[in-house]
Amino acid sequence: MTHHVYKKTEVVGTSPTSIEDAANTALARAAKTVRNMRWFEVKEIRGHIEDQKLSHWQVVMQIGFTLED
Amino acid sequence: MTHHVYKKTEVVGTSPTSIEDAANTALARAAKTVRNMRWFEVKEIRGHIEDQKLSHWQVVMQIGFTLED
Amino acid sequence: MTHHVYKKTEVVGTSPTSIEDAANTALARAAKTVRNMRWFEVKEIRGHIEDQKLSHWQVVMQIGFTLED
Amino acid sequence: MTHHVYKKTEVVGTSPTSIEDAANTALARAAKTVRNMRWFEVKEIRGHIEDQKLSHWQVVMQIGFTLED
Amino acid sequence: MTHHVYKKTEVVGTSPTSIEDAANTALARAAKTVRNMRWFEVKEIRGHIEDQKLSHWQVVMQIGFTLED
Amino acid sequence: MTHHVYKKTEVVGTSPTSIEDAANTALARAAKTVRNMRWFEVKEIRGHIEDQKLSHWQVVMQIGFTLED
Amino acid sequence: MTHHVYKKTEVVGTSPTSIEDAANTALARAAKTVRNMRWFEVKEIRGHIEDQKLSHWQVVMQIGFTLED
Amino acid sequence: MTHHVYKKTEVVGTSPTSIEDAANTALARAAKTVRNMRWFEVKEIRGHIEDQKLSHWQVVMQIGFTLED
Amino acid sequence: MTHHVYKKTEVVGTSPTSIEDAANTALARAAKTVRNMRWFEVKEIRGHIEDQKLSHWQVVMQIGFTLED
Amino acid sequence: MTHHVYKKTEVVGTSPTSIEDAANTALARAAKTVRNMRWFEVKEIRGHIEDQKLSHWQVVMQIGFTLED
Amino acid sequence: MTHHVYKKTEVVGTSPTSIEDAANTALARAAKTVRNMRWFEVKEIRGHIEDQKLSHWQVVMQIGFTLED
Amino acid sequence: MTHHVYKKTEVVGTSPTSIEDAANTALARAAKTVRNMRWFEVKEIRGHIEDQKLSHWQVVMQIGFTLED
Repeated sequence: MTHHVYKKTEVVGTSPTSIEDAANTALARAAKTVRNMRWFEVKEIRGHIEDQKLSHWQVVMQIGFTLED
Repeated sequence: MTHHVYKKTEVVGTSPTSIEDAANTALARAAKTVRNMRWFEVKEIRGHIEDQKLSHWQVVMQIGFTLED
Repeated sequence: MTHHVYKKTEVVGTSPTSIEDAANTALARAAKTVRNMRWFEVKEIRGHIEDQKLSHWQVVMQIGFTLED
Repeated sequence: MTHHVYKKTEVVGTSPTSIEDAANTALARAAKTVRNMRWFEVKEIRGHIEDQKLSHWQVVMQIGFTLED
Repeated sequence: MTHHVYKKTEVVGTSPTSIEDAANTALARAAKTVRNMRWFEVKEIRGHIEDQKLSHWQVVMQIGFTLED
Repeated sequence: MTHHVYKKTEVVGTSPTSIEDAANTALARAAKTVRNMRWFEVKEIRGHIEDQKLSHWQVVMQIGFTLED
Repeated sequence: MTHHVYKKTEVVGTSPTSIEDAANTALARAAKTVRNMRWFEVKEIRGHIEDQKLSHWQVVMQIGFTLED
Repeated sequence: MTHHVYKKTEVVGTSPTSIEDAANTALARAAKTVRNMRWFEVKEIRGHIEDQKLSHWQVVMQIGFTLED
Repeated sequence: MTHHVYKKTEVVGTSPTSIEDAANTALARAAKTVRNMRWFEVKEIRGHIEDQKLSHWQVVMQIGFTLED
Repeated sequence: MTHHVYKKTEVVGTSPTSIEDAANTALARAAKTVRNMRWFEVKEIRGHIEDQKLSHWQVVMQIGFTLED
Repeated sequence: MTHHVYKKTEVVGTSPTSIEDAANTALARAAKTVRNMRWFEVKEIRGHIEDQKLSHWQVVMQIGFTLED
Repeated sequence: MTHHVYKKTEVVGTSPTSIEDAANTALARAAKTVRNMRWFEVKEIRGHIEDQKLSHWQVVMQIGFTLED
């Protein structure tokens, strides 16, 4: 290991079904512009309610990725 | 938008199967007495163990709803 | 002072102009149903953006009031 | 256990003598209007000073109770 | 609502006059490079002092915006 | 109830599929050496990314168990 | 820059009108006894209610100042 | 002092009467298996309610002890 | 009420017997040099262990007092 | 000072030798793409262990820089 | 990766010279009884003062290690 | 031990070279006016950047000292 540097970016994934799906949605979108993703940290879990029912989950997460030299 | 006011109430939903089911259980119960629910925030996730196995999830969440004038 | 008991309720006031106005809006609405309000604590300050501009402030606050015997 | 839902309410008990007494004072008052109380969590301990001496303790606590179906 | 993904960016607005002005300054500057801004969260309020007086407010805020597909 | 004492231990469960599975994995492993497990508290949710996709969830949790006399 | 040392003091400013005014009130009072004030950090925003209305804001802030050699 | 190393363990003491008694109960139990205890830190204070009354306090605490070489 | 300013000072009271006694000890000592004390906030509760027993409580608290003009 | 706006970015520097070296490594890498860096805040210190020894430090830090008009 | 489970233990390393040395001291001691150590997280940095000078650093850290099946 | 009372003061030490040096700088300066210093707690680590390089560390720390009777 030689002095890697990582960057963290914060995104919010959403899903009508589950926390896991919301996280995967966020990762799939981030993968379009971010390379070398390595880990994520869930910072907050919340959601929207419509017609008195959960309409979608909102999962706030930080994604860490390697900065190339 | 004209000066809405919201109120937050804190509930704990439980479920033997999943975090999502526990949240939905809490929302379904809250819907009986609270109108105009708009969003929720998960504050804590914990659970009960029986016979050395997870017996149910406990999801502490705040529910925000619009206060009518 | 003889063993007072207080209760705290959590509300969110909004305003297009200022944090202070959002707080006063919340207090004015709460005053309709809550008696003997004594103090408040700002828990969170956030806001909504529309057309790339701040459309309204959202001030989350707890209001403490005396419980009558 | 079948999908219980709990609610949490936040109160502040006071007492000139002790933290325990302040908590009991809050529970006794809450018992007048809240049924099925199950647990409490101390969130904050503070107090008032008069004539350079502690005049009473203020114990902020959340009380959890079962919501009946 | 179909699986939106949001991103959060953290900025610090400053103003010699008020917290609100500092927030608006930050949003105006962010609007030059960030599209589809949706909400903001105030994370920290601080300020600089010069000649023993408040010279400007510093408002640290996270701005959330929609990521286009 | 007579003066029980509990101990808390902190473990991290992992799973390629879900948060719930990660938690159950941790409990199953802990059950091999810890007796009288009673409750758990989720302290942190994170995960590992490989090939730009979520490879496994990491759920940090504290497990509480009764200390026998 | 040669090894400066700063000290932080915690004060609470009050004002019937605004958060900014409460902060300025605190700084003006602190300036009477503290020299070389450099920055401040808002730690808490709360307020007092009288006759069901906001009577004054209370802004808890830490003030940093240079310690002379 | 020559490079001591300490370990922290987390326990929960209970008592029907007081926070202090709960803490002492935890320490007495820990003393059966842990040597060289040096300090403790209270992390959480909560309790159980039965028949609408406080039935016992639960004091979560970390105990620090010296690791022998 | 006319623009009062308060100052907060942080002290640690100790006592072999109770949290309350530790707090009172701190207040009694502070009263020797601080005038116009108004309130206190408990920030941390910890303690020292000797001979495998609690030897004294340590209660970290902030004391607020009015700054005279 | 005229209404500056700053942006914060979050990076993780690593080093086999020290926290300071890890921070400098992160700053040196960030300097390649970020202009006008002004300050940093350490958010988290952690590290990796290999062969039962510390193999490298990981220092999570936010870097603040001036946004040009 | 197949469903690993990790455990975290909390230790405090000390050193008269540096934070890094205190961390290494803790890891060296832990290595005597804990196998498969993988990472650590610094939770708190503090120290002891004697004769008005820093006598030793105290670094509180959690160590994560793989639980063997 | 007989009812000692301690006071905590908050200072910020700076150094171009290391966190340890910044802490020692703060302690050396504090020793000029504070007697009976006993311990310190690091509350925040940050720093200033000039010419795209770390120019000095800023270590915020609380120092605890015994209050004489």
